[in-house]
Amino acid sequence: MSVRAPISGPEQLAAVLDAADGDVRSLVARAERRLADVAGVERHAGETLSAGGKRLRPILVFLCGGARRSDQLVHAGVAVELLHMATLVHDDVLDRATLRRGRPTVYAVGGPDAATATGDLLFSRAFAELSRTRSRDAVAALSAASSALARGELIQRQDAWSDAVTPERYLERCELKTARLFEAACRLGAMLGAPGSEAADLLGTFGSRVGIAFQIFDDVLDVSGPTARTGKPRGTDLLDGTVTLPLILARRRDPELRRLDLRSSVTDAAEAEALCDRIQATRALPEARDRALAFVTEAKAALRELDLPARQRLALELVADGVVERYA
Amino acid sequence: MSVRAPISGPEQLAAVLDAADGDVRSLVARAERRLADVAGVERHAGETLSAGGKRLRPILVFLCGGARRSDQLVHAGVAVELLHMATLVHDDVLDRATLRRGRPTVYAVGGPDAATATGDLLFSRAFAELSRTRSRDAVAALSAASSALARGELIQRQDAWSDAVTPERYLERCELKTARLFEAACRLGAMLGAPGSEAADLLGTFGSRVGIAFQIFDDVLDVSGPTARTGKPRGTDLLDGTVTLPLILARRRDPELRRLDLRSSVTDAAEAEALCDRIQATRALPEARDRALAFVTEAKAALRELDLPARQRLALELVADGVVERYA
Repeated sequence: MSVRAPISGPEQLAAVLDAADGDVRSLVARAERRLADVAGVERHAGETLSAGGKRLRPILVFLCGGARRSDQLVHAGVAVELLHMATLVHDDVLDRATLRRGRPTVYAVGGPDAATATGDLLFSRAFAELSRTRSRDAVAALSAASSALARGELIQRQDAWSDAVTPERYLERCELKTARLFEAACRLGAMLGAPGSEAADLLGTFGSRVGIAFQIFDDVLDVSGPTARTGKPRGTDLLDGTVTLPLILARRRDPELRRLDLRSSVTDAAEAEALCDRIQATRALPEARDRALAFVTEAKAALRELDLPARQRLALELVADGVVERYA
Repeated sequence: MSVRAPISGPEQLAAVLDAADGDVRSLVARAERRLADVAGVERHAGETLSAGGKRLRPILVFLCGGARRSDQLVHAGVAVELLHMATLVHDDVLDRATLRRGRPTVYAVGGPDAATATGDLLFSRAFAELSRTRSRDAVAALSAASSALARGELIQRQDAWSDAVTPERYLERCELKTARLFEAACRLGAMLGAPGSEAADLLGTFGSRVGIAFQIFDDVLDVSGPTARTGKPRGTDLLDGTVTLPLILARRRDPELRRLDLRSSVTDAAEAEALCDRIQATRALPEARDRALAFVTEAKAALRELDLPARQRLALELVADGVVERYA
């Protein structure tokens, strides 16, 4: 199967921004400058920032905020991205990851101590930034997402290496670890861009479904590669003991995989690659992809219940489709 | 020198609560129940919670909030304590500490992964709790303190083992790591207990000075012990490479200490004990204590500029004195 540009690919993101109101591009630029002011001043946080990222979550804030230009939207977009960065920095400590986006992680450069403190700093700055919106509901939304993220992380660690993880349990983890922050981004945009509007719930549902699809595809890409696209060896998650949907589905299809003990059988990159091949042979990846597509469909259905301006709707649909396009 | 009960000692805290308005005791009880609801539901967070703590920061919130009973004060007190707990859990990861308050740390029970995620969860819950006050200024105050804490942690790690740490640099670290959260606790109490009052700045100054004195005495106790009082071996901080005021001052008095390389010379508990004896021999501890007393004096001076009810003033003075009484 061929792999097309992911949502992180410049041309796809450009398509989203082209479709959106022109103000969205300017909000993204303002958020980037503000991120440099807020995170760039501290060495390790600055390294994380300059390593880049697709800024997908701020873009969701701005797209859901509608056409309105607003300092509040910029603060919210920056806050969501800072929180996302904080979790990446802490995840890298937990995974002992030395590279991210092709650059050394804070963990690699500064060690676990600096990385833990840097993550804490980014967390704190996220809430400081959000307090500038002067919206109490915004803080409640982001802190709820942030709690969910941490609970998802705890569940992931509890379930590591387990052969008892069901698809439902896996989806619960995706919901906590990924979807809640996407949901919060969309809600923040809706509540700050058009206060009092009833769109926040539906846009929140849109974000949540896009987030789950995003995570499933991420886990598919971990198995399918190619490495040149994902920037990491195939099977990295499996090697860490993270039980993802492709493995769960493959185990249902292949009795030998059911008997495989992940912890003792997958101990190096070569064994991880071999397991990826074995999972692919079961055709579990198309099944996982179909499940993700169902969430994209749900996301778009939520949009259809809203009376959105055409450009806003198109841009949001492109984001939802972009998750799928990563793997076609 | 004899060591009396620290501010954590039950009888001293009882004296503070006796001096305060009766409502403060009831606010403390409500905060304790709320902490159980918020943190007790998750296993590791619950362990941290049930390990206890003197709840000094919530008490500061309530004392500065005046006589007014208020849900807002309880939320703020709980938020400050959750943030404090989050930093303890992360500190234990950084210090690889297996015991705190005589009980196994989350790091010891669940490993670094669970402890990092548990700290993140407590951080998130702190802001979720504070958002319930529906006060945007409250969130700004706590997130500023939280950022300061993380920066203080980064500075501490940067300065580890260094022989170039000046008293000024040490005090800057105390300010960031300890005093800002004490300051935030007092400010939150003032702003939520008596909105619009001009007391917040002066009570914030009070909290900040008490916090610095608190940290200096903590560092004195690390050198003086006794272990039975502090619950940890003497010189634990020095063994971790943390350069504290007693060592800085002792180095000025003892040329051999100036030449000592902390990293290579203090590598086990016995060497740490020996260094503590050597520091004590220089009489650096009384000098450090005098510096802390100067901050207690500043704290009480800030109180005198306020027209506080007699009971409230007395209770706050008892807190300030309690820091000193830990070591008399």
